[in-house]
Amino acid sequence: MSSLRTLRSLSSAHRFISRTSPAWHLSRRLNSTVSRDPMTGELTALPDIELSRLEIIQTKQPKQTPNASNLVFGHTFTDHMLTIPWSANSGWGNPKIQPYGPISIEPSATVLHYAQELFEGLKAYRHPGGKVTLFRPDMNMKRMNTSAKRVALPTFDGDALVELMKRLIQIDKHWIPDQPGYSLYIRPTLIGTQPALGVAPPNQALLFVICSPVGPYYPEGFKPIALYGTTEYSRAAPGGTGAFKLGANYAPGVVAQKEAAQKGYAQNLWLHGPDHHITEVGTMNTFVVFKHENGVTELVTPPLDGMILPGITRDSTLALARDHASGKVILEGLPEPSKFVVNERPITIKEVKEAAQRGSLVEFFGTGTAAVISPVNKIGYLGEDIHIPTGPDGMGPVSRPIWKQLVGIQVGNIPSPWSVVVTE
Amino acid sequence: MSSLRTLRSLSSAHRFISRTSPAWHLSRRLNSTVSRDPMTGELTALPDIELSRLEIIQTKQPKQTPNASNLVFGHTFTDHMLTIPWSANSGWGNPKIQPYGPISIEPSATVLHYAQELFEGLKAYRHPGGKVTLFRPDMNMKRMNTSAKRVALPTFDGDALVELMKRLIQIDKHWIPDQPGYSLYIRPTLIGTQPALGVAPPNQALLFVICSPVGPYYPEGFKPIALYGTTEYSRAAPGGTGAFKLGANYAPGVVAQKEAAQKGYAQNLWLHGPDHHITEVGTMNTFVVFKHENGVTELVTPPLDGMILPGITRDSTLALARDHASGKVILEGLPEPSKFVVNERPITIKEVKEAAQRGSLVEFFGTGTAAVISPVNKIGYLGEDIHIPTGPDGMGPVSRPIWKQLVGIQVGNIPSPWSVVVTE
Repeated sequence: MSSLRTLRSLSSAHRFISRTSPAWHLSRRLNSTVSRDPMTGELTALPDIELSRLEIIQTKQPKQTPNASNLVFGHTFTDHMLTIPWSANSGWGNPKIQPYGPISIEPSATVLHYAQELFEGLKAYRHPGGKVTLFRPDMNMKRMNTSAKRVALPTFDGDALVELMKRLIQIDKHWIPDQPGYSLYIRPTLIGTQPALGVAPPNQALLFVICSPVGPYYPEGFKPIALYGTTEYSRAAPGGTGAFKLGANYAPGVVAQKEAAQKGYAQNLWLHGPDHHITEVGTMNTFVVFKHENGVTELVTPPLDGMILPGITRDSTLALARDHASGKVILEGLPEPSKFVVNERPITIKEVKEAAQRGSLVEFFGTGTAAVISPVNKIGYLGEDIHIPTGPDGMGPVSRPIWKQLVGIQVGNIPSPWSVVVTE
Repeated sequence: MSSLRTLRSLSSAHRFISRTSPAWHLSRRLNSTVSRDPMTGELTALPDIELSRLEIIQTKQPKQTPNASNLVFGHTFTDHMLTIPWSANSGWGNPKIQPYGPISIEPSATVLHYAQELFEGLKAYRHPGGKVTLFRPDMNMKRMNTSAKRVALPTFDGDALVELMKRLIQIDKHWIPDQPGYSLYIRPTLIGTQPALGVAPPNQALLFVICSPVGPYYPEGFKPIALYGTTEYSRAAPGGTGAFKLGANYAPGVVAQKEAAQKGYAQNLWLHGPDHHITEVGTMNTFVVFKHENGVTELVTPPLDGMILPGITRDSTLALARDHASGKVILEGLPEPSKFVVNERPITIKEVKEAAQRGSLVEFFGTGTAAVISPVNKIGYLGEDIHIPTGPDGMGPVSRPIWKQLVGIQVGNIPSPWSVVVTE
């Protein structure tokens, strides 16, 4: 009875138990077998995602891999996908790698009505010699769990999902085009599938992972983009969902993007509140570089105040820049550490505009998984254009060394703990 | 050539053409047959939703209709559903009434990743003698089109969709429980189905309508609810999507509702901004009644400032109250017209709290399709409870006459142009 009592006390709090605690290890061991107290029928520790329960159904009709030069972002998918069902009664079910194909969804499923959905995006890189790696997948798993909590979807063991994604990528690794700048875009997605119209935490969910071979964002070298400063719509607000990678943040942004395009700009820049604070660029984080009168170069990005997505390229850019500023890892080409500071602080469009007029604006760029770094050369703001310097290759003096380091790590030229091996 | 030229000029603006214009009638006539200029291949007027193209596939396995007393909101669905596909190239396709069942969706469909989705909710009422009516379906169609524009989903002819919904309801009308207070809840839904991961207006979409028999919201008479004043999360913000019936507004509210329940309150009250303005109650609009020192009773609801859903019960409540205040249609039980005013104006929780303390707070209630009117007896706010008067039957002196009139129209006891006949 004493082990039953221990189990019962784990109850639904199970998934929030610290992974170093004995209770966590106990519950892990019992995961696959115990979900109800046999004496009382009461729910005990529910199964988490388990690699050992993986079932693999290989496709019998492998598709022809596409000609890399014809790839359009997110239009082509590999032969297989990973699915893992969840229910409130029995926890996470058997992971399954199966042929890529349509999902059968009840028309009353909450994902179709109430946007009970979230996603992640990361890339698998193929290195010369055939080694395949992922870039910081632990960060995606952490954010995916944070997003899940925000919309009352189930959380899970991120390490187990990384292991399962590795299996999926191993099976479809011949889909990663064998050319520099190409990669496999991985899209983990979690949706609420309860077939009922009440607005409530779902009692059924489905996690799935699909993979899409993608080309370089700038196949012909960097091309700085023009942004339209959006003040008519807002992407996020205090107490809202801007800091979470939820489906709900994306559809509402399409009209802002469409209107920016109609006005002749490539993307929109989200300006928040009466002071028009700079928040994000389309679906990327934003960085600005100033050169101050005292000769110090400042790299700035808006702080994680609840309205900014905690981007993994954002985090990596800050980490590399801070390592340089502290003298820990010097990046060739950046201003010397004593003349370089890195700040997460609010920035208004007014500050950018005045810096541009004064000649102290050095760079403006977006960061994200798709483009890594995306330089900006112009911002349309209330009928005027703010012009932003760009280097001869499109990049600026701060973004270029950071981009080189980041991409060097991603493609395996620079060893780093951020690079996680999928297959040697 | 001249008719071709006319058609070409209609182009994609087609759906926004005034319905009284000759161009609209021309495009209607040609809807089903013309979608490309045969000379240039250029897109011309695309087909809208057309009743004449309806295809009906009756189920071969009708389900047993449920025992009405066991119904849980939105868990039971009728035998059939309506589906209408759309594509950017060919416009709206053939409407189909078919057996209710799962939908096949590509795992890359934008609805699963970016919340490209919206819905409506309305009820079909069965009257003694078998007549079936809908309540103000034109309002749902108007709002559905407004929502579609906000997330770049396709708009459509709302009248045609109402006609198609009537056909669906006629086929499944035996599912409307034959008991007072019961109805058939109709859920039109529109989702983006383009199988591609780019964040953009979808080039494929699916409109579907499902029907669920529902019981009275308060089977044992009115039961006033306690609200928790939510200041930790926000439902809507300026420039956001609060005024549109989008999926994106709902999943983010589940945690606020869950936390209200954990604190012992039935629902949450969304308090916006630093002044804690009253906006909505859970998924309902909010009304407050004050009795001022001069003897005037004031019915107030927050204005449609872009953050408030333009609820149909809200609009109907305002219309009935204003007709009374102007002396046009007197509702028995309401204060006499000279002592009754109706206002759409901002209200803060402070105003409500002070009125409660002073004894000038008369009522606080929510309005929505599900409950019609939902009286509130308590609001938890920053650790204190604001107590709100309720009448012996749960309702108050202003909500009761309005509720009686509204429900009288809905169930067919009071003739009204708001009641639209589905079948005699």
